[in-house]
Amino acid sequence: MKTLNLEPMLKPKSVAIIGASKDPEKVGHVILENYINAGYGGSLYAINKNAAPNEEMLGVKVLRKIGEIRERIDLAVIAVPAPIVPTVLEECGKAKVRTAVVVSGGFAEIGETELQDKLASIARKYNMPTLGPNCLGVMDPRSRIDTLFLPTYKLSRPQVGNVSFVSQSGAVGSTILDLISGEGFGLSKFISYGNAAHVDEVDILNYLMEDGETKVIVMYLEGIKRGKEFIEVAKKVTKKKPVIVLKAGRTSEGMAAAHSHTAALAGNYEAYEAVFRQFGFVISEDISELLHYAKIFSTEPPPLGNKIAIITNGGGAGVLTTDAISASKELVLGEFSKDTILALGKTMPKLVNVRNPLDLAGDADYKRYGTALDLISKDPNIDILIVIALFQTPGADSKTAAALIHFKQSSGKPMAVLSIGASYTEMHKIMMESSGLPVYDSPKAIASSLLKLREYYQYKNRKD
Amino acid sequence: MKTLNLEPMLKPKSVAIIGASKDPEKVGHVILENYINAGYGGSLYAINKNAAPNEEMLGVKVLRKIGEIRERIDLAVIAVPAPIVPTVLEECGKAKVRTAVVVSGGFAEIGETELQDKLASIARKYNMPTLGPNCLGVMDPRSRIDTLFLPTYKLSRPQVGNVSFVSQSGAVGSTILDLISGEGFGLSKFISYGNAAHVDEVDILNYLMEDGETKVIVMYLEGIKRGKEFIEVAKKVTKKKPVIVLKAGRTSEGMAAAHSHTAALAGNYEAYEAVFRQFGFVISEDISELLHYAKIFSTEPPPLGNKIAIITNGGGAGVLTTDAISASKELVLGEFSKDTILALGKTMPKLVNVRNPLDLAGDADYKRYGTALDLISKDPNIDILIVIALFQTPGADSKTAAALIHFKQSSGKPMAVLSIGASYTEMHKIMMESSGLPVYDSPKAIASSLLKLREYYQYKNRKD
Repeated sequence: MKTLNLEPMLKPKSVAIIGASKDPEKVGHVILENYINAGYGGSLYAINKNAAPNEEMLGVKVLRKIGEIRERIDLAVIAVPAPIVPTVLEECGKAKVRTAVVVSGGFAEIGETELQDKLASIARKYNMPTLGPNCLGVMDPRSRIDTLFLPTYKLSRPQVGNVSFVSQSGAVGSTILDLISGEGFGLSKFISYGNAAHVDEVDILNYLMEDGETKVIVMYLEGIKRGKEFIEVAKKVTKKKPVIVLKAGRTSEGMAAAHSHTAALAGNYEAYEAVFRQFGFVISEDISELLHYAKIFSTEPPPLGNKIAIITNGGGAGVLTTDAISASKELVLGEFSKDTILALGKTMPKLVNVRNPLDLAGDADYKRYGTALDLISKDPNIDILIVIALFQTPGADSKTAAALIHFKQSSGKPMAVLSIGASYTEMHKIMMESSGLPVYDSPKAIASSLLKLREYYQYKNRKD
Repeated sequence: MKTLNLEPMLKPKSVAIIGASKDPEKVGHVILENYINAGYGGSLYAINKNAAPNEEMLGVKVLRKIGEIRERIDLAVIAVPAPIVPTVLEECGKAKVRTAVVVSGGFAEIGETELQDKLASIARKYNMPTLGPNCLGVMDPRSRIDTLFLPTYKLSRPQVGNVSFVSQSGAVGSTILDLISGEGFGLSKFISYGNAAHVDEVDILNYLMEDGETKVIVMYLEGIKRGKEFIEVAKKVTKKKPVIVLKAGRTSEGMAAAHSHTAALAGNYEAYEAVFRQFGFVISEDISELLHYAKIFSTEPPPLGNKIAIITNGGGAGVLTTDAISASKELVLGEFSKDTILALGKTMPKLVNVRNPLDLAGDADYKRYGTALDLISKDPNIDILIVIALFQTPGADSKTAAALIHFKQSSGKPMAVLSIGASYTEMHKIMMESSGLPVYDSPKAIASSLLKLREYYQYKNRKD
């Protein structure tokens, strides 16, 4: 399968921003500003056809044409009006630019298909991987690449991490990227590919499949053009790493809306779903689920089985989580071994009823959590740990959070924390998530995320 | 049906805290402190059997026995060790105390059923509505009543509002109360009734049904003892106001866990669910849903039909929301009338494709939102409005939020906002919610909440 090399786009040594502008209201200005703020360390050039000799913009030298640059450019970011994009792209091709990102809109999405075809044929002629048009472009916090034209006060940038996020839509992409900035897991790559005139989801999956910095792939899809090639890469990628997918147009009404939105044929959802299921994609039906699932895959190892232990400091929350786990059918509560029961009986206060879910009671402090976790995690009848820490209770405080973090670092089994509440809880959530513990705020979210973890690794480990 | 009058418990003119303590680690200290911090304006007494003559505690006069108070006491909050609770309660009865809240644990939940029966028989003997034992007690931000023994830094207190929240479990109760503090809608009453030795869910529903300050009732239930009486009140209450219910023990595993937790028979969930459905309860299956549903019922009027309009500044988000709405089966996208289509065609930019969902595009500013909303809300084919405002887009800012607030105040149709993102979005969410607009952060949450709104009012308006 022919695929495009995206490495120079995500790890460029030299970047030119074409359409850079002095006017702070212009897209070309915001991109240049964000690029500088991101702390990019390679060569950076601003291109503006009306530049005066020796002009500078935000401290960057401005040239009139890409051809004036003496160095070979890895990435050209193009933010000029649609009608002149082909001319600019042609110039890039002639200058042996390695890759291009066209953020400009005004192509197939408003019926200008000819203009878009022209763009695509130039990209192909020069074999120059070109992203877009009508997209937000790319972000890579490691190489400090940021082609987004949205200011950081509107769209917070995520920290460095191992989740790569691919989005067809710019608006949904920016929204989810903004949400990721508030999560404990960080970003490896963000790729918004818009109209997919040249680079499409097949190329992107091929690239991310081999990318050592990417542990989890998250995709927002509206439609797929190269079905056969998609299936080819789908087969391979999920045997290497999880792909969490949210597909718009799941209903006939949504499909009609998607058709009007992107002019891409959304296709029959059942057909997509069949492919996703067959090849072990992690299917999400909502933006919130996308984030819940990304969180668990980002930090947790494969579970060895489906047997859950619930350790809680609130009885009711233990019951609700038992309900959520049991409703999944696949996951079950494990029965503690005789050794575990004996050891818990010796170490827990009398009021603690030794069973699963284990209710440590509202006065449980970090020591009681630590003792229980040590014993239960060693139980061969337990594969996955759910720890409920309600920080409203009298016994819970930052030592409790610290004990969970400490325990996590020595435990080899998947573990997730349920903590529900306002500011005091949020503070501990941040503390735990920044140390690699996945924290959830509802029983349903934690149960569905663990179910996906279990299902994916069952698929991955299946002998074909 | 015999029911207990809870008015003196929620609106007391005089309160005595029995077991008040100087030791900041003691429950009796935290309760007194929270009571004072809440700004309660009635008479307040602290009772401690070891008090010195003329002793004061946090500025409150301390007496040795409830009988020493000359004024009649509306509410006694009892925080003394379980074994002496009956003696103290008997003293309250003799002193003609109107109501009591027993926060102390150590009764049926640890097998001490005789002690609990004793407590109940004293409450009955003096016809003194007694809440608990083993509960958090009550909160009413209007009368500034707060019997919770959890400090405000651990559990933020909600603002004044129209949602009353009833919880059997103290831990789940405190968790949800803490979450409510972060929501735009506020609290009317919080009642945590624990072991329900005397006052139970039937009494509480009877009270809240007639309470003019309560528009919405939210319940977390583990089990019901008086089934027949519950059905009696269930029939009546949902014809007056919505009751959102989360029942623990939905699965057999959860039921077993609930049984161990409260010693109350959780009963067969199918039986509960049948009753809930028959009497128009709004059924929730997760803590997160409880809050989503409370939000919409707190602010929105009854919808006149099931036809939704979606107005968005992000095409993809419009498609995802269309999917979520259509998956509900009951809700549908309305077709704009000819007049609306004509008027939108005249006022919207050419790029805007006039259809439902209406994609105003990423550059839509507050004026474009205002014009579209004015036209669409008058359309007789539209019953409910969903406004998607993605604040990452170039056109959206605080003027957009202000326009939605302004519009809301003149529109008679139910309306909900979808805004997804981090800090910049959160800031606008707070702005909108504090002005009575319900804001959601996922398509699924907004769709399921509007579905519940529609279903409940269909039930309520049904002629029996």
